[in-house]
Amino acid sequence: MDLRNELEKRTSIFNTYWQRYLQIKNPKTLYEASQHLPFAGGKRIRPFLTMISCESVSSDATKALPFAAGLELMHNFTLVHDDIMDHSMLRRKLPTVHVKFGEPTAILSGDLLFAKSFEAILNTSVDFFILKQLQQDFIACIIAICEGQQLDIEFEQQKTATEQIYLDMISKKTGALFELCGKGGGLIGGGNSQEVAALKTYGMALGLAFQIWDDYLDMSSNTTTLGKDIGNDIRNGKKTLIAVHCLSHVTGEEKQLLDNIFGNRNASEHDVAKVYDLFRELGSVEYAMKRALQYVDQAKDAIAMLRPSDAKELLYQLIDYIIQRDK
Amino acid sequence: MDLRNELEKRTSIFNTYWQRYLQIKNPKTLYEASQHLPFAGGKRIRPFLTMISCESVSSDATKALPFAAGLELMHNFTLVHDDIMDHSMLRRKLPTVHVKFGEPTAILSGDLLFAKSFEAILNTSVDFFILKQLQQDFIACIIAICEGQQLDIEFEQQKTATEQIYLDMISKKTGALFELCGKGGGLIGGGNSQEVAALKTYGMALGLAFQIWDDYLDMSSNTTTLGKDIGNDIRNGKKTLIAVHCLSHVTGEEKQLLDNIFGNRNASEHDVAKVYDLFRELGSVEYAMKRALQYVDQAKDAIAMLRPSDAKELLYQLIDYIIQRDK
Repeated sequence: MDLRNELEKRTSIFNTYWQRYLQIKNPKTLYEASQHLPFAGGKRIRPFLTMISCESVSSDATKALPFAAGLELMHNFTLVHDDIMDHSMLRRKLPTVHVKFGEPTAILSGDLLFAKSFEAILNTSVDFFILKQLQQDFIACIIAICEGQQLDIEFEQQKTATEQIYLDMISKKTGALFELCGKGGGLIGGGNSQEVAALKTYGMALGLAFQIWDDYLDMSSNTTTLGKDIGNDIRNGKKTLIAVHCLSHVTGEEKQLLDNIFGNRNASEHDVAKVYDLFRELGSVEYAMKRALQYVDQAKDAIAMLRPSDAKELLYQLIDYIIQRDK
Repeated sequence: MDLRNELEKRTSIFNTYWQRYLQIKNPKTLYEASQHLPFAGGKRIRPFLTMISCESVSSDATKALPFAAGLELMHNFTLVHDDIMDHSMLRRKLPTVHVKFGEPTAILSGDLLFAKSFEAILNTSVDFFILKQLQQDFIACIIAICEGQQLDIEFEQQKTATEQIYLDMISKKTGALFELCGKGGGLIGGGNSQEVAALKTYGMALGLAFQIWDDYLDMSSNTTTLGKDIGNDIRNGKKTLIAVHCLSHVTGEEKQLLDNIFGNRNASEHDVAKVYDLFRELGSVEYAMKRALQYVDQAKDAIAMLRPSDAKELLYQLIDYIIQRDK
């Protein structure tokens, strides 16, 4: 099994399928705004995870397509609204929805994607009790994502930071959706309760590894000059696991340095480089990498109990892919 | 049956019931923002309509409570987002959610209310096929409201206006939700297809009468000085049925006058008064009143086929109440 081939194969099936939820109707501008991000590309990791989770306990992955579409529509809705909140100008190398269509239409197009995500879920061909479970989990997942985004907003404004608060925030903001990809795929495939629990644990661990590794990659650049993104993250005081680790271990003069520069929008290149060095010297970059790898192990351990299959093999490969991917 | 008594009685039951969807959790600020508008009052016309529609075909109105809660939560979610889009500062005499909590938290709290509305719907105790129908209708209703809001945004920017476009817009923005109150209540009460269709027609006609009458009340003020709201609506070029009628019937010099003043944010008091007079002279105010009353008749005609009951009596009284209510 070659992961990239299998990912491409399923992504192609998925992309054809979910277009039915993205048809242009009137008023055209609203629907074009809703299409903008979904059609701007994206690796479709979440639909893929949903499909292979289903396959790992069943022979038919197509049964998971409506639920996978619901999750990806919902993911896109949260991105559209997040970009408004964060004043982001670009995503997937294109202007964000609110930049291109204006904020009112962007808010509405997010709401429309949200409604469409429920429409997709409702088309899942499973019996009543499973459907109700999927819907309850789906609602709980959206609520967790809203809570996670709010925690993230508040987190950035706080002076202090603990790893526990950070993990709670990313569990909700990023982990909950991956968790539901695994669990939902397992439920739709008719997995037994142990299998469903294993896929759920796998999903959450994958989500956490994904998020922490993402922040790690940003900071572990080997180039001699500091990337613009790293500089911005330091100037904006972005609370990654690396920053949180550093903030809670730094003392003395170095603490003073960090307090002065981290989150200081006017910090010089030189000062930013000092913080970057501090992250490395205190072992914070190394620590984040190790924590991400712990979640990788946790994910792998969780699915050890699944019966051997190509899909199980892909689940193993997916988690390795997640921590190897280029930025 | 005294409508005000019955409305108060059911509103009290409803307000107690739906609080379960508005409990404070962490992060507190997000949940406080979600509570803000729901707890700021409101007549609960939509839950009341849902409940008495259910009662008109069944003896048990409490069965309709979860669905009524879903509709009211959804209504509140759309108001929170609309207020952001319209830059509104006040609603129900309180600062709007984004004014009080900031825009990011306001967007999120709307999303949270949206998710909670689905949670409420899912708690409706009806058999699988009815629940699926309710969910499909609920999704279609949200989509219609999003489309209606987008049409409204575009409508304000257009120079031309037809009654057809206006009616399409308010059918979606206001009518669809009232329609679903009637239809949903009927479905939950176990009404037959003719009864459900009658309640659906009643709801839509009530919604249209409600919206047109609202605009009519704004313009039919008997005070000698022009209210601030009327002046603002004229300066903002708000496309009510009155304005749409006037725009499509005005000719010659008066057309020039209207073109110059309607939608002109710098128009003087004197000019605004001239447009106000024009609305009356061309019979546009009178026309809107008549159209509202036609929808009142349509609503009453629709429910004539329902079997006699207290609830049916309340449905008749509700539509009269709608067009008598004080601003």
